[in-house]
Amino acid sequence: MQAYTPGEQPRGGELIKLNTNENPFPPPPAVVKAICDAASGPLNRYPNPMAQSFRVAAAEALGLPGPEWILAGNGSDEILTILVRGFVGEGECLRLPHPSYILYRTLADIQGAKWEQVSFETDWSLPAAFSQSDEKLRLVLLPNPNSPSGTTIAPSEVERIANSLDCPLVVDEAYVDFANDNCVDLVKRNERVLVTRTLSKSYALAGIRFGYLVAQPHVIAELAKIKDSYNCDMISIAAATAAVQSKDWLAGIRTTMNATRERMSLRLSQLGFHVTPSQANFVWCQHPDGNHQAIYEHCKAGGYLIRYMTYHGYGDGLRISVGTDDQVDACLQLIQQWLQAQ
Amino acid sequence: MQAYTPGEQPRGGELIKLNTNENPFPPPPAVVKAICDAASGPLNRYPNPMAQSFRVAAAEALGLPGPEWILAGNGSDEILTILVRGFVGEGECLRLPHPSYILYRTLADIQGAKWEQVSFETDWSLPAAFSQSDEKLRLVLLPNPNSPSGTTIAPSEVERIANSLDCPLVVDEAYVDFANDNCVDLVKRNERVLVTRTLSKSYALAGIRFGYLVAQPHVIAELAKIKDSYNCDMISIAAATAAVQSKDWLAGIRTTMNATRERMSLRLSQLGFHVTPSQANFVWCQHPDGNHQAIYEHCKAGGYLIRYMTYHGYGDGLRISVGTDDQVDACLQLIQQWLQAQ
Repeated sequence: MQAYTPGEQPRGGELIKLNTNENPFPPPPAVVKAICDAASGPLNRYPNPMAQSFRVAAAEALGLPGPEWILAGNGSDEILTILVRGFVGEGECLRLPHPSYILYRTLADIQGAKWEQVSFETDWSLPAAFSQSDEKLRLVLLPNPNSPSGTTIAPSEVERIANSLDCPLVVDEAYVDFANDNCVDLVKRNERVLVTRTLSKSYALAGIRFGYLVAQPHVIAELAKIKDSYNCDMISIAAATAAVQSKDWLAGIRTTMNATRERMSLRLSQLGFHVTPSQANFVWCQHPDGNHQAIYEHCKAGGYLIRYMTYHGYGDGLRISVGTDDQVDACLQLIQQWLQAQ
Repeated sequence: MQAYTPGEQPRGGELIKLNTNENPFPPPPAVVKAICDAASGPLNRYPNPMAQSFRVAAAEALGLPGPEWILAGNGSDEILTILVRGFVGEGECLRLPHPSYILYRTLADIQGAKWEQVSFETDWSLPAAFSQSDEKLRLVLLPNPNSPSGTTIAPSEVERIANSLDCPLVVDEAYVDFANDNCVDLVKRNERVLVTRTLSKSYALAGIRFGYLVAQPHVIAELAKIKDSYNCDMISIAAATAAVQSKDWLAGIRTTMNATRERMSLRLSQLGFHVTPSQANFVWCQHPDGNHQAIYEHCKAGGYLIRYMTYHGYGDGLRISVGTDDQVDACLQLIQQWLQAQ
C-alpha cells in the first residue's frame, strides 16, 4: 500500500511555504496565552474525553443547539479517519470527486475499502453521477471549498445531493472560513449531512492538530465510540477553545487574506494564467504556454515553495497558498521572471 | 457495539483520584517550560510528521541504534489502534490475557475483528495456550506490567512466547518505569516483538497524550503509513522531548512512588487484604471478608476515588493507584474505618 504523501515540509525554514495552505500569520493571541495557562494546569490528569469546553464554545460560535452536535478530533484528519472507519467496511465503497483531496483514497486503502472518483465538470460543478445512490456505497466525501480548485458547491445543491444519496455525505469545510457560505444549517435538517472543520487553516493552528465534526447528536454519539478515549489533549483543547472564541480576530484574518487572494488572482490573470475563482486561501492556476513544473522549480530555487499538482486524466497546474502580501508579491515576481525568460 | 468505558473522571476536582493510575505529581519542570516556548513557535505551520525531535531523544534515552526504531503517537492508545488496524483484518483474531486491559477487546470490536482471552494462572503466570500459534491469529497483546495485577512476565519468558508465535507480540509497557525490567532489548533480537510505551503514567503527562512504539525500522516504516499524516502536535512533541530527557527526574519519581507502593502494600496486608506484589504504580488487592464494592463506595463518600473491578470468570477486587503519601494514608484510613465497622 502507498502512504499518503503530505506537501513538502522543508526542514530549517529557509524556504517560504506557499504549498500547504497554512496561514502565514500567527494564531489569535488568546491562543498563546491559553496554552501557557494550560501548561501549569493538571497535566498529570487525563483530559476531558469529549473536549467539552471546546464543544460548548464551538456550538456557541456556530449557532448550534448545543455541544452534543460537535465531535472534536486530533485534526480533521482524525475526524475523516473516524468517519471512514465508522461507515465503510472492508470491501465497501466510498466516493469522492476528482480532482480533489487524495487523502480520502488513502483512508479507503488503509480500511481495505474501495473508492470511486467522479470527475468534476470543466466548470467545477458536479455531474449527476455524483448524486447517484448505489448499494455498495457507504460514504460520499465532498471538500467544499474543493482543493485544488478553491471552488464551492452551493448549499442548496449540496442538500439536493444529500437527498439523492442513501448514505452519509461528508462536506469537508477545511477552507470554509474564506468562503461566502457554508453547510452547517443543512446538518440541522438532514441527519445524513456531516460537516468537518479544521483549525489548521483559518485559525493558523496547523501545529496544534485540532478539527471537529458537526452532525446530529445521535450520529456524534455513535462515532464517539470509535475514537480513542482521550483523543484530544488538554493543551490543544484549551488552545482550540480560545481560538473559536476569537471571532473578531477571525473576521480580520478573513478580510486580509481574501483581499490578498483577489489581488493575487488578478495578477496571475494579467500574467496570462487561467485562474479558477477561489473561495479558499489558495489559488489554482494554469498557464496555456506554461511548463508548470518548471515554474515550480524556478520558484523553489528562488526560495518560494508552491505546489505543482498533476491529476490523472485531468492535467496539471499550480496551487499557490495565500501568504502575506510581501510573500505573494515576491513569488509572483519569480513567476513573471520565468515567463519573461521564455 | 459497546464503547470502551475509561475510569471515572469526576468534574470539578472535589475527589482525590486513585482510580486511573495517573501520577499524583506534576510533570518534569522542563516540560512546562518547553510547552510555553513552543506556544510562541510557528503554530501556523504543520508539525514534523514523524515527531523527529522526540524520536531522537527517545532513541538516545533507551539506548536504541537510532530514531527509526521509534513511532510516536497521540497516546499509546493511538499506537494500539494503529497496531490493530495494521495487523488484524475484519474477521481475523487477536489474543489477550485475562484479566487484563479490556481496551484491546474494544479495539478488536471497532475493527470488526475477533478476540480470544487466555486466563492467567492463579499466580499470574501464563499458561501454554497463550504461546500457541494459530492460523487465524494476527496479533497477541501482553500488558507487562499487567493491569489490574501489577505483575510482570520476565523478558526471557516473553522472548520464549514471541518465538512460539507466528504473529507479532505487543508488549504494552505502560507501567514499565515502575518495574524492575523491560523488553526493549528483545526488539533488537526479534522483529515480532513490539513494545509500546506511554508518557501518561511515569512522566505525569496523561493530559498531553503521548505514547510511542519501539520496533525494528522496517516495521515502523510500514505502520507509519497507517497513521494520520500529522498525528502528534507541535506542543506535545516539544513536551514529550523534554520529558524523555528528564532522566534524573524520572529516577526520583520512581524511587518515591515505589516506596509509597511498598508501604501501601504492607498496610493493606496488615488490614487483611490479599495483595498481589506489584511492579506498577497501583496495587491490586482482595479482602477475604470484604465487600469490595462497598469499600469503593465508602472511599468515594469520603472523597477518595479508587477502582472497583470485576472480571467475568475471575472475580472482583480493588485497584488503588499510588498517590502521594498523604493521599494514600487518608485512603487507607477510610478502608480501615470500613473494615472496623463490620
